[in-house]
Formats: sequence, C-alpha cells, structure tokens
Amino acid sequence: MEVWEAIRGRRSVRSFVDRPVERSLLEKLVEAGTWAPSGGNAQTWHFVVVTDSEQLRRIKTVSPGLLGNPPAVIAVCQDLGEAGRKGGELGAKFLAPVDAAMATQNILLAAHDAGLGTCVIGSFHKGAVARILGLPEGMEPVLLVSVGWPAEVPKPPPRKRDVISWERHGNRT
Amino acid sequence: MEVWEAIRGRRSVRSFVDRPVERSLLEKLVEAGTWAPSGGNAQTWHFVVVTDSEQLRRIKTVSPGLLGNPPAVIAVCQDLGEAGRKGGELGAKFLAPVDAAMATQNILLAAHDAGLGTCVIGSFHKGAVARILGLPEGMEPVLLVSVGWPAEVPKPPPRKRDVISWERHGNRT
Repeated sequence: MEVWEAIRGRRSVRSFVDRPVERSLLEKLVEAGTWAPSGGNAQTWHFVVVTDSEQLRRIKTVSPGLLGNPPAVIAVCQDLGEAGRKGGELGAKFLAPVDAAMATQNILLAAHDAGLGTCVIGSFHKGAVARILGLPEGMEPVLLVSVGWPAEVPKPPPRKRDVISWERHGNRT
Repeated sequence: MEVWEAIRGRRSVRSFVDRPVERSLLEKLVEAGTWAPSGGNAQTWHFVVVTDSEQLRRIKTVSPGLLGNPPAVIAVCQDLGEAGRKGGELGAKFLAPVDAAMATQNILLAAHDAGLGTCVIGSFHKGAVARILGLPEGMEPVLLVSVGWPAEVPKPPPRKRDVISWERHGNRT
C-alpha cells in the first residue's frame, strides 16, 4: 500500500471479527513502532503485546476507552526512569509520551497496510494496566493500541478546517 | 512509496540543500498530519508553516534543537484551552501532545514519500516560539518539524533490542 493511501485510509476501528492475529504480524507492527524517531535517539520504549484472553479481559476492565473485543492489544510503554536519566525532565515528561505516540502512529499505518484495524486508547487506568502487565518500577503504559481484523470500518470523521497558517498564526494566505 | 519502505527508510535529516519547498507540498504535509487520529476526534491542532527567512532566523535563535538551515519549519501547535474544554485535564495535558506527535509522524512519512527530509525538534523555547508565531493565548507549539531537500541522509542509528514482551513484561517468548 502506498504511504498516502495508508495515511488517508486508516480509520479507528472498534469492532473486530473473532479471529486471532498472527504473532509474526504483531512483531512486525512493533518493529514499525521502533522505526519512529525518538528524542536524542533515546528509544526508551517497550511494547507489551497481549493476546491472552484472560489478560485482555483484565485490561478491558480498567480501560473505559477500549471498545469491542480486539484479539490483541499492544501496550506502548515508556521507561520513565531511563527517559529521565537520558533526557532529564524534558525526556521523562515530554519526549517519552511524544516518542511513544510517534511509534504508535507507525504501528497504526503498518497495521492498516496489513489489512488490520486498530484503535488508540488514551483513557485507561495507568496504574492498573501497569500492574496487570507486570511493568517494572518506573515503566508506564503510555497508550494502548487495540489490534484485530476489522468487522466494520467507520467512515472518515469530518476534518477540522482552517488548521494552517503561514509565517504567523492567522495568516491564511 | 510503500508504507513499510517509508517507515523503515525515513531518517532524521539535519542538513538541507538551498532550495525552497513548494507551498503545495507543504500544504500536503499538513494535510497528512490532519489525518492522524486524535483523542475524542478533538483535532485541536494547528499548523504554522514558516518559510520566511527572517521568521526562520528568529525561530532558530530560540531552538537549540534546530540544526542545519531548513527552508521550512512546520510548528505543530495545540490549542490547550480547546483541548481542556473538550477533554478536561487528560485532554490538555496528555492527549494534546500525543495527538500532535501522531500528526507529526504522518508529516514525516508523507515528507519522506515526497523525497523531502525532516527532523523533529522538541528542544526549543516554547514561549519564545509562541511569540514569534503570534500564537493566541492558550495555543502552544508542541513540536517543530524542519523540512527541506536533504543534502545528506544519515545512516539508520542502531535500534534498541529487547523491546517486546508477550502478555506480561519480561516474557520474551
């Protein structure tokens, strides 16, 4: 699939068919994530891929944003201790979530390229998910990405207009 | 260009030839950004594209992370007031930077697809850049993206290993 087709065609999918996602495909999605840039090339991310039904059930219980029944969830995590040691407060508080989000966008596009549907979840109980995933001290789940074969692909939501200025804010031409 | 080729092939470019980037291309990059998902479809982002040499000089002065002499910089901004009204504290403090970063990754890939080089800059004086760009109260520059025709494309930096766990952290198989 062409880059532009993936960028425009990717939707947030919240309804999945009951079919597992091959492990090799999930590994490929994580690899896509790791090709994102990171501040100072810190790469303080870690990806926990969950496919076990009991683990998925536990995560769902503490993640109001997780809709449908995806056969896999990728928890995009950051080692905030390492991020702080490498990049100070900017590293831990700002670059770590930003890097995780850029990695996440790569995952979404690689998934769409493979015919998979995804949805990014930002609304979940971080502490509870960290416990469920057994994350070590200082590591935090930043975003969850549900992954599966789409049962339904929604229409593109309307895009906001007037999002671009030239040279200075408000200069539209 | 294929999605996977773009994801793997994109490098952070910090050295640009002295050649402007067509306005239509810059508009296309911003459009790529706007196709990223956003928390609750809030789309509280705004993109200020800077190509004026005097404006670029001003931004460079307050952005230690901005290397080389890119002919264009895209400031990926967020209206934190609007983000807060739409998504509360989660919206303003977490979703806004995360959404900006996902939009940024789309910009990087679309630029690479067009043969352009980019670099994400997180190290800059936010208040100073906001003033230079004339951002309204409550709007903040989250990331800067330098854009230009690459003079030099660096080799891929080494990727961190052991970034994936299965079901629970530390479970490598």
